[in-house]
Amino acid sequence: MCPARLNQDLARGFIIPIGGGEDRVKEQHIHRRFVELSGGGDADIVVIPTASELETTGRDYNRIFRDLGAAEVDFLPISRRADCDNPRYLDMLDRATGIFLTGGNQLRLSTILGGTGIAQKIRRRNAAGVAVAGTSAGASIMSEHMIAGGDSNSSPAEGRVSLAPGIGLTNAVIIDQHFTERNRLGRLLTASSYNPFLIGLGIDEDTAAFIGPDGVFEVVGSGTVTVVDASGLTHSSMWEASRGEALTLLGLKIDVMGEGCRYDLVGRHAYPPDEHAAFCTLPNEKVTTN
Amino acid sequence: MCPARLNQDLARGFIIPIGGGEDRVKEQHIHRRFVELSGGGDADIVVIPTASELETTGRDYNRIFRDLGAAEVDFLPISRRADCDNPRYLDMLDRATGIFLTGGNQLRLSTILGGTGIAQKIRRRNAAGVAVAGTSAGASIMSEHMIAGGDSNSSPAEGRVSLAPGIGLTNAVIIDQHFTERNRLGRLLTASSYNPFLIGLGIDEDTAAFIGPDGVFEVVGSGTVTVVDASGLTHSSMWEASRGEALTLLGLKIDVMGEGCRYDLVGRHAYPPDEHAAFCTLPNEKVTTN
Repeated sequence: MCPARLNQDLARGFIIPIGGGEDRVKEQHIHRRFVELSGGGDADIVVIPTASELETTGRDYNRIFRDLGAAEVDFLPISRRADCDNPRYLDMLDRATGIFLTGGNQLRLSTILGGTGIAQKIRRRNAAGVAVAGTSAGASIMSEHMIAGGDSNSSPAEGRVSLAPGIGLTNAVIIDQHFTERNRLGRLLTASSYNPFLIGLGIDEDTAAFIGPDGVFEVVGSGTVTVVDASGLTHSSMWEASRGEALTLLGLKIDVMGEGCRYDLVGRHAYPPDEHAAFCTLPNEKVTTN
Repeated sequence: MCPARLNQDLARGFIIPIGGGEDRVKEQHIHRRFVELSGGGDADIVVIPTASELETTGRDYNRIFRDLGAAEVDFLPISRRADCDNPRYLDMLDRATGIFLTGGNQLRLSTILGGTGIAQKIRRRNAAGVAVAGTSAGASIMSEHMIAGGDSNSSPAEGRVSLAPGIGLTNAVIIDQHFTERNRLGRLLTASSYNPFLIGLGIDEDTAAFIGPDGVFEVVGSGTVTVVDASGLTHSSMWEASRGEALTLLGLKIDVMGEGCRYDLVGRHAYPPDEHAAFCTLPNEKVTTN
C-alpha cells in the first residue's frame, strides 16, 4: 500500500479529497476543476461507486461529468472482490485521465478493493500523472491511514477514532470529511496524535483540498479545511490514557483554511489566499519536489 | 512513514519482530542471532528503551548484548519528544550496526518517536542494511500499521482492534505479539480484514520472525508465528457490521508456523523447515527481489 514509485519524468497526478455534499447543480466548482485537471474536453473519467450501495450512484456521476464537458465517462460496477479481477476494468483505468471515488462507506471500499489489482492500478495511475478525486468515504480511503469511524466530539479522547488501512495514494495525511458539519475535530486530533508524523486534514462539506504533485494543496469550496499538525507536540497523555479518557495534548498546531488558502505538506506551513497566484500547477507540468 | 527508499547497491537490513517474553538466560537463540546479524564481535548495538517506563530496561539489555559478545552496546534514554532532537543520539544511530526496541507500551513509542528525526533515522539505517529487532511493544511499532490495543478473543468482531500508525519499517505486514498466550487471533483477523492488502503476523512469546531483505522470514524460537492472509477473501461483513458484532469472513488463509518454517511475504506462501537450507541470508549479501 506504499504510494507507487514515481517515474522521475512524470509529475504525480493531483489527489483531491472532497468533504462530501459538494454542489452538484449550481457552480460545481469542485467537479468542474477536477474535469479540467483530467483534460477538460479530452477527459476520460472513470467513476468507482463501490462505496455506495445505491445502484444509481455510478450513473448519476456519469451525467455530472458529461454535463461538465468530459469526452468519456464510465463507471466500474464493482460490488465484491471477485469483480476486481475483471481485465476490462483494468483496461478502463489504464485509459483514464481522471478517477473519481464516490461516497458511501469507506470500509466497504477498503474491504472490497484492498489488496486487489484495482487498488494497485489506482495508485500506479496517480503516480503516472492521473488525477484522483474522492468525496466523503471516497476521500477517507485515499490515504495510507484511514479514519474508519469514531465519535462526534470536539475534544480528543483515547478510543475516539478507529483507523484502518486505506488505499495509500499518500501517507503524509489522514483525512476526515463532513468535518464541521459532524463535529469531528476530536477524532481528527486523536488520530493525528497517535503518531505525530501524520498531518490531519478535516474537510468540510462542499470543500476540497487539491493536493498538487509538489505536496502543496489549495482549498476550493464554500467551507474550510482544518489542518492539524502534531509534530510539535511537547506532551501527550495518549499512551497512558484509558479508553474514553480525555487526552492532554500540548503543542498542537491548527490552521483553519478557507477558499484560496494553500498549505505546504512538506514544510508544514499555511499561506493565505494570493490573488496573483495561478490556481494550481497543471498536472502535466514537470515539478521539482524538495 | 513510508519505508525509506532502498539504495540499489545495498540490501535492506533484517526486520525482527519478537513476540515478547523471549529467553534471556538460557540459550538466548533470538538475541544471539540478532547479535550475529549485527556483526557478532564487531556489533555496535543501540537499544531504545522508550516503550518501557522502567529505568532499568536500557541497562538490562546492555548487559544481555554485551554477554553475547557485542563490541559496543548503549541505550538512548529517550522519555519525551524533546529528547529526540539530541544530535548525539542521531550520531549513535549512524554508527549502529544493530538497533533494538524494547517492550512496554507501543503508543508510548509512536507518540514519543513518531515524526521525529529518531524515527526517520531508524528507517534509513534499516534501509541501508542495519538489523532492527523489537520485542512486544517494540515488535508492534515496526510496521506502518500498528495494533495499538484490542480484546482477547479468538473470533473477529467489528471494533475488536484499534490501529495506529507505527514506525513504518515495512507496510507488508501488521504484527501482534504475546499471540497465543493472550488469545489474540480475533483481533489479528479483524485487523487483516480491514484491508486485505495486509498480511497479519501473530507472534508467540519467545518466538521471532527474522524478515530478510528478500521479503522471506524464518521462524526462530519455542512458539509459533501465525500468518493471516486475507487477500483471497470472497466475502466480508466488516463494512456493514455494527460495533462489537461478530464478523463473517470467507476465504481467509492461515498458516501456523513453528521453528525453521519460512514464509514468502511477496508470494504469500509458507514453507516447512528445510534441514538443508542456510539459516538466513546474510544481511550484507546482495539479494535480488521480485
